[in-house]
Amino acid sequence: MPEQQHIRRQLTTDDYLQGVFAGDRAILGRAITLIESDAPRHAVQAQELLQRLLPHTGRSIRVGITGVPGVGKSTLIETLGTQLCERGLHLAVLTVDPSSSLTHGSILGDKTRMERLARMENAFIRPSPTGGALGGVTRKTRESILVCEAAGFEIILVETVGVGQSEIAVHAMTDCFVLLALAGAGDELQALKKGVVELADLIVITKADGPNRERVLNAKADYMRALRYLAPTTSNWRVPVLVSSAHTGEGIDQIWAAIESYRTIGDTTGTLIARRQAQTQQWFEELLAEALQRHFYQNPQVAERLPQLRQAVVLDQIPVVRAVEELLQLL
Amino acid sequence: MPEQQHIRRQLTTDDYLQGVFAGDRAILGRAITLIESDAPRHAVQAQELLQRLLPHTGRSIRVGITGVPGVGKSTLIETLGTQLCERGLHLAVLTVDPSSSLTHGSILGDKTRMERLARMENAFIRPSPTGGALGGVTRKTRESILVCEAAGFEIILVETVGVGQSEIAVHAMTDCFVLLALAGAGDELQALKKGVVELADLIVITKADGPNRERVLNAKADYMRALRYLAPTTSNWRVPVLVSSAHTGEGIDQIWAAIESYRTIGDTTGTLIARRQAQTQQWFEELLAEALQRHFYQNPQVAERLPQLRQAVVLDQIPVVRAVEELLQLL
Repeated sequence: MPEQQHIRRQLTTDDYLQGVFAGDRAILGRAITLIESDAPRHAVQAQELLQRLLPHTGRSIRVGITGVPGVGKSTLIETLGTQLCERGLHLAVLTVDPSSSLTHGSILGDKTRMERLARMENAFIRPSPTGGALGGVTRKTRESILVCEAAGFEIILVETVGVGQSEIAVHAMTDCFVLLALAGAGDELQALKKGVVELADLIVITKADGPNRERVLNAKADYMRALRYLAPTTSNWRVPVLVSSAHTGEGIDQIWAAIESYRTIGDTTGTLIARRQAQTQQWFEELLAEALQRHFYQNPQVAERLPQLRQAVVLDQIPVVRAVEELLQLL
Repeated sequence: MPEQQHIRRQLTTDDYLQGVFAGDRAILGRAITLIESDAPRHAVQAQELLQRLLPHTGRSIRVGITGVPGVGKSTLIETLGTQLCERGLHLAVLTVDPSSSLTHGSILGDKTRMERLARMENAFIRPSPTGGALGGVTRKTRESILVCEAAGFEIILVETVGVGQSEIAVHAMTDCFVLLALAGAGDELQALKKGVVELADLIVITKADGPNRERVLNAKADYMRALRYLAPTTSNWRVPVLVSSAHTGEGIDQIWAAIESYRTIGDTTGTLIARRQAQTQQWFEELLAEALQRHFYQNPQVAERLPQLRQAVVLDQIPVVRAVEELLQLL
């Protein structure tokens, strides 16, 4: 019992730092839990920890992976991840799934999904943070990336299901964004429509085996045609369209080769550092705007007057600009 | 000279009101100029005028029209508009063109473009407000719609070129959004990609004459296929795809019939009033967010500290959340 208590005692920021730097999985997990906490009393320590970890972050390749449910994300991550770990690389897998708070996640039980990878010594799999809107989930995942980097992981995979705005969020926190796609069934059009193809640095069409193989090759041609109309996100980078199969193992090597080549070009041309700086700045501006709104809406006078003015505006009883002016004067 | 001075004297809000209600084009033009003014001294009177006009607004059908340059927007508006005026209806044509401040507009010299319509007694054509970002242009056009409605125009056409965010802005201020499209040349894909097809309540493929007619009919089939994948914006409304020709006059009657049928359904089901209320509320929330940001960034302490913190954040010297907290504490 005293030992049990020792283990569960509150950690100082120094404890967290030492544990993270030593690659201690238990402490790493607890550090991420601290960062994910919505409790105000944890926020101060979380930010202090991050402040001290910051000089040791940034030295990974951050890879985003998206695709509709059923496309084979877990299978691909497990296969690719296991190979990378076997080569001696360290891999952290994080997920962004804003639905997880309500439905316990479309990405169910990450460790169960990727059993083999979860057993690898070099792998760290962390399910999606629960609770809150996408903005909150995004903040937590961004900060978890930093913690994993400080813990020495050279590869961070951030996985998201292809729903809503989560793809844009993951694109905004990764170096390289990989879109997994299925052949046929309007999937190309859906992806184009949602603007996800535009975000992709690499497209992989999965299940390229058996009778499906021909449809996959047709879909590949479709995507390549579509890409001609889209401006590339990264200069000097032509988005490759690859095909893969979990059965035959086809494509796994090429996917990693493409990511490495993307990284080399990005490092050489400076686009990677520029992308990260732009991402950080954008994140800062977004958080600032959110915090500012919270500050405003929590003002008691605003909270009282706002619903009345909103109602008057919607019913065309007062011009929009006038209602806004009146509210601002309450500050 | 005394008469000249009389004409150019400053108008009281009562002068504006009387002129607008009487349908006086000169006063109407000056009222819109007052609203478009960026000068703070005009803002108070502009908002007072709007406040008093508000009870007399809302009784028009607001139609947005977009399409890439060369699609034939002016030709279509002139032909359709002239027919409507000949039937005794009153038509105001406004434009949203955020580029106009720099380039004097992609929509050049509106009155020159639509000579015949400009001469109609029942028509009022107003070029895009110049100056400022899209937000400012949008505010001015929204308020100009209200002034035109108070002046008795039953139809307000808001035209925009198919660039950037202006289509979303025009969609957000109109009852019915019409997309004009060309056949072939990747135009379908571009429109889909940008999400404009999703906004459309009516699609018209232009230049359906001569050797181009067959391509137009193919494009029509393509759009109808694409629409099957998109959720309709308005319930009970299936987005029609029409074809038109400026040469043969084909399609003009059907376009207006479709808009009228859209309006009838929208009135009956209540979707039209719901859409307007949602638009007004969204506009209010957007303006409020903007005003709040202005209030914040103009704070002298914020203006001094913000660039330093932004720099530190981008260089990974301080966690994003911490920088945001520090800034908020300055308020």
